[in-house]
Order: sequence, then structure tokens, then C-alpha cells
Amino acid sequence: MKRGQANPVESLNKLGKDIVKQLDELKNPDVILPVRTLSNIYFDDKSKIIQLGDKISHRTYLNVAHTRKFMQTLLVAAECKKIIEQNVTTSIRDLYYAVKHTIPGTQENTVEEQSESDPVLEDLEAALNTLREQLHLQADRKGHVAGPIVVNDVGDDIDATRMGSSGWAIPSNVEPETVKFKSCSADYVLVIEKDAVWQRLNEDKFWRKQNCLILTSKGQPARGARRLINRLHTELKLPIYVLTDGDVWGYYIYSVIKQGSINLSFLSDRLGMPEAKFIGLTTQDVKKFGIPGNVTIKLNQGDVKRANEMLNYVWFKPKEWQQEINHMLKVGYKLELEALSAKGIKFISESYLPQKIGEKDFLP
Amino acid sequence: MKRGQANPVESLNKLGKDIVKQLDELKNPDVILPVRTLSNIYFDDKSKIIQLGDKISHRTYLNVAHTRKFMQTLLVAAECKKIIEQNVTTSIRDLYYAVKHTIPGTQENTVEEQSESDPVLEDLEAALNTLREQLHLQADRKGHVAGPIVVNDVGDDIDATRMGSSGWAIPSNVEPETVKFKSCSADYVLVIEKDAVWQRLNEDKFWRKQNCLILTSKGQPARGARRLINRLHTELKLPIYVLTDGDVWGYYIYSVIKQGSINLSFLSDRLGMPEAKFIGLTTQDVKKFGIPGNVTIKLNQGDVKRANEMLNYVWFKPKEWQQEINHMLKVGYKLELEALSAKGIKFISESYLPQKIGEKDFLP
Repeated sequence: MKRGQANPVESLNKLGKDIVKQLDELKNPDVILPVRTLSNIYFDDKSKIIQLGDKISHRTYLNVAHTRKFMQTLLVAAECKKIIEQNVTTSIRDLYYAVKHTIPGTQENTVEEQSESDPVLEDLEAALNTLREQLHLQADRKGHVAGPIVVNDVGDDIDATRMGSSGWAIPSNVEPETVKFKSCSADYVLVIEKDAVWQRLNEDKFWRKQNCLILTSKGQPARGARRLINRLHTELKLPIYVLTDGDVWGYYIYSVIKQGSINLSFLSDRLGMPEAKFIGLTTQDVKKFGIPGNVTIKLNQGDVKRANEMLNYVWFKPKEWQQEINHMLKVGYKLELEALSAKGIKFISESYLPQKIGEKDFLP
Repeated sequence: MKRGQANPVESLNKLGKDIVKQLDELKNPDVILPVRTLSNIYFDDKSKIIQLGDKISHRTYLNVAHTRKFMQTLLVAAECKKIIEQNVTTSIRDLYYAVKHTIPGTQENTVEEQSESDPVLEDLEAALNTLREQLHLQADRKGHVAGPIVVNDVGDDIDATRMGSSGWAIPSNVEPETVKFKSCSADYVLVIEKDAVWQRLNEDKFWRKQNCLILTSKGQPARGARRLINRLHTELKLPIYVLTDGDVWGYYIYSVIKQGSINLSFLSDRLGMPEAKFIGLTTQDVKKFGIPGNVTIKLNQGDVKRANEMLNYVWFKPKEWQQEINHMLKVGYKLELEALSAKGIKFISESYLPQKIGEKDFLP
């Protein structure tokens, strides 16, 4: 069964009923959870995304090492059920406060920090084959879209060609139950790491000239932005092109958009987008586009270490990536998107992007 | 003359012509700048905002301590003129890259880091009596609005009652030349520090029930959000109520919205809003609203130090603030907005806020 297709209230009910049954049978209450550490993660060659393996663990009540987490798991599950049944949405910070209380007759709190309730929630998402969004919990939101698409979000039609200088702000929950695609005539989606570059392109109405959507993730994309990118490709068949700084952080952002992340590996099929292509920047662009050397930035120790690690990641094994990362290490510099401004404010929208897209000059 | 009423191109031209005149007369070229350090800042009792005094400084070419900054000042001024004349907008990061180059025949770069070009730009804003936005430079943008207002932004009408779960994203430039108020029937503006709380209230359509605008600053407000708050009060006569965490950081956010900040003191009349009221949270709310003690957070050393500093700020001298800050120090705790969730997810929208607003239970 595909993730997210389970009915979350049914799953939560089943979790509770199983515990009650175990208690009735005088068994040690036990919750089964998938293992979410690196040992149970693999890169799936067929789907080209980071996936969760099938190792499971038991979280049992009558084990002093588990008791506290067992209690927290049931508290969070109960609170999620309450939130869904009230038909409200709330934040993971609210969830933490809602489950926090002092256990009667003791000095002990059920949870002390949000760092205790957050992983319990991720455990539940993975165990119940559901999504935080379907448990009515908001992740942080970030990102904007402009271009020829009309969406309906909780009943309101939003035309992303008529959103002024702001664009449509991507909501935290973009699941199909909430955000519906009404119409879209774009040819592709340009995903842009930096909001300032997005604003530059939006002001130039790049999306009109190129008949595309422009989407800024404002740095590492939030869940909503990743899920939206996934849906734009999967449902509307739009190619996804990703534009980041020419540095290890930018390449990492691209890899998260493409393959998913280790932390949320159980969501890669919903949040990843293995067909995405990398449009730039690359350190090889410096020569290709005659970018002046004084706007490049010398690699620091951290960059070099990270670049060497990336050479070994299976998803950076394609020869084009090996070539780019080795080139970066050889020339010893990185560069930011704004470096293109040294060639003139409109260089990015009038020369760099049209040429790259026209020639399909992408990294895989 | 009120800040921002100067024509920026005229001011930039005058700056350049004055330098040429000095050169023609074989004088040492000199730019006059207001002093922007603490020594030239004061709290103006009449306007109730932080203001820049009238001390000035000279930045001259034939002074080795000034030469580099003098050059940068003219480079940034020239680039601003170019950007305005091209009728494009760009970011301060782009500006940095645009003015960065190696001086011919030397190994020296005009600027090394953005931390060199940013203060030069602020100097120009202060010296030319203009605004970054009027120099076509974007500040970072942050924040969302929902409720009964229609704005026009660069030609597009945006109805903030029909923006789904996102709201209208506040652009970086909300100057009247760009963002026009078309209609507004709201009774007041509720400014909310935390986006998660804004999303909660938006989902409850709090703005419809209370006939208000809800605006989240997402933490310390960006320039766009501060300017919009200022315009909503000044032009539409809407009262401004501010809702933050009950901690020193929240109180500081409030003070920046109200009085302006030291760093941007030369903009207080455009970005400050001395009529703003503080709606909460306060540590005194804990007793008043029966908030359980286990969702309060113990003050740390930094909180105590900061609270004691704030007791001495002239803008926290009103007795209600002295009482609140002393109360915080006495009980030794702070609390976040999400702490209200311990009383139920809808407590904030159905009880806390309506009661506070109904009883005008504000701090000044």
C-alpha cells in the first residue's frame, strides 16, 4: 500500500485497540515501529529514491528503557486522534504543549522538551503509514510560486499569475484533499534555492516569457514545497529543473529534492522527485559563461570535506556529478547565484537560464 | 522634510555632482553622513519613537582611514542609480556582487564581503533621506496577512479573504508606489509573532468572526512587515494589537514594532508604530487565565540579565511594563503562545483573544 493511503483515524483506533487487547490478555503492551536509523536506509536503484528498509523494533511498556517513550507514543497518538476528530489543524509545537503535563502524584512531566515529542510523531507517521499532514499537524511553511497555474486551497481559487510581487505562498499542507490543481499551462517548473533570485525572475515575468512556473524553496525546502514539487511532476507531468548556488549546500538541496532525505526516508515516495534535473550553478559554468573570477569564493575546509563525502554517495555516482565535484575540488572555489549579477542584473533571466534550458544543459 | 520624500535619482545625481564640483575646485572630495551609532540616538518623548540625532561625520577621499569606504560609497551610489534607471529591483546580495571587482593593475578588490556593502547602503539611505525600497533594493521578506482587505500590488488585485490557508505574503517592498490599499473593512490589526498561531487563527477564520486583519511577522518582523503595519495604522487608522510569546524576546519584538530599532533609527518614522498596544502573553496571564504551571519555562541567566536591562529602557518605563517585567523576574518563568494549547486547541481564538480585546486588557 502506498504511504498516506491509510485512514489515519482507523489506524490510530487500531493502535489503541491492539494495546487494550494486549492488556486484556495480560500481555506486555507493545508497539511495533519501523527502524528509522541509517542501518535501515538504502538507495533504491529502481525508484531512484532513498527508502526505508523492513527492519522493525518493539517499544514495550514493561521495559524500563522503553516505558517513558511507550507512554509518549500513546499520548501523542491520543492527541492526534483528538485533533483530527475536532477537525482542526495545529503545529508540532502545540502538540508538545498539549501532551505535556505532570503525572499526578509525581514530580515527573510526560515530556520535557519538544525534542522528545517530535521523533515520537515521526515514529507514528512511519508506523501507521500516514503523513503528518493527515494527522492535522503543520510543518513549518516556506516558499512561493508564480506562473500559469490556478490552484484551489481550502475553497479559494488562487491564480499564480496574479499574485503581484509576492507569488502564492506554499501552505504547510498541500495534500490533494486541501490543494487542488484547477488548471495549469506551464511547460516546466524552475525550482530556485534563493528567494532574491525568484523575486528578480518574477519581476522580469520570466514565467510568462518562458511559460513556466517559478518556485522558490527559500533554502532547504520545507515539506510543503517538496510535496508540491512531487505533485506538480507526478500529476501534471511537468519537468522539474533545480537552480541552486554552485556549492556543496546547493548540491545537497538538489539531492534532497531528488532522492529524499535520510531523516524522512519513509516519505521519499511522496516528497522525492527522482526525475528532477540540476540546471546550475556549477563551477564549470564559470568558464562557460565568462563569470569574473573575483566573484567566486574560495572553498573552506568544511566544503572540501563535504565534497569528498559527496563523491562517495551513490546518488552522486553519475559521471557528470563526479566530474563537477572533482572540478570544484580542483579549482578550489564555489559560487553563489548572485555571482551572475557581475554580468549584469538581467544576465540570469535573459542569458544564463534560457541558454541552459534551450540546450538542455543539465546534470542528472 | 519627511524621510522618503526625496527623489532618489535626484539625490544620487546631486551626490555625484557635488563630488565633481569639489574635484573641479581641487578640493578634497567629501561626503557628509549622519552618525548612526548609539551616541547619536535618542528616544523622542513627543513622537514616542527612537530617533537619529543631528550629529554628522565627513567621509573624505584624501584620508587613508576613509579612502576605501569613500570609494565604496560612490560605487554603491552609482550602482543604485543604474538599477533605478534600468527600472529593475535587486537584492542587497546582488548589489554586493555587482560592485565587487578587482581594481585594475592591483590585487585589491573593491569590496571583500557583503558586510562592507550593507552599511554603506544604510549610510546612503540615511544621508540621502531615502529608503532602500526607493533605491530598488529588496530586503528579505517575511510574513502573511489574512482578513477583509484588498490590496493592489504591481497591478494585481489581491483579496486577503480569499487566499486559502496561505494568506497574502507580504512583499519586501510595500511602499505606496507599489502596494495600494483598495478597500478595507477591518476594525483592527492583530500582529502575531508566530506563524503557527496565525495558521491556527486563519483556520478558525478568526479574522471573519472578529472583523480584523491577522498578520504574522514570523519572529522579528522584516522591514516590509513593519512598514505595512505602519501604513495600516497611519493611512487606514486601524488600531494595532501585538501578540507575542511571554518572554524577553517577545517584548523586544513588540518594542521594535512600536518604537523602532537602534540600527534603523533613521527609519523609525516610517517603520515604527508608537500607537501599537501589547495584547500578550504576559506572565501575569498565567494566573488570570488559569494556565497550568507545567507549561511555563524557567528563566535562564540570559533572560534574567535581559529583563533587568529592559527595566532601564526608557520605552519600558510605563508602570504597567515595570510591573510585568518585575513580575516575570519574581515568578522566574516565561511562556510561549503555544502554552495556551494546554487549555485546548481553540482556547486562544475562542477565549483568550476575545476576552483581552473585549476588555481592552493591553499593556502600553
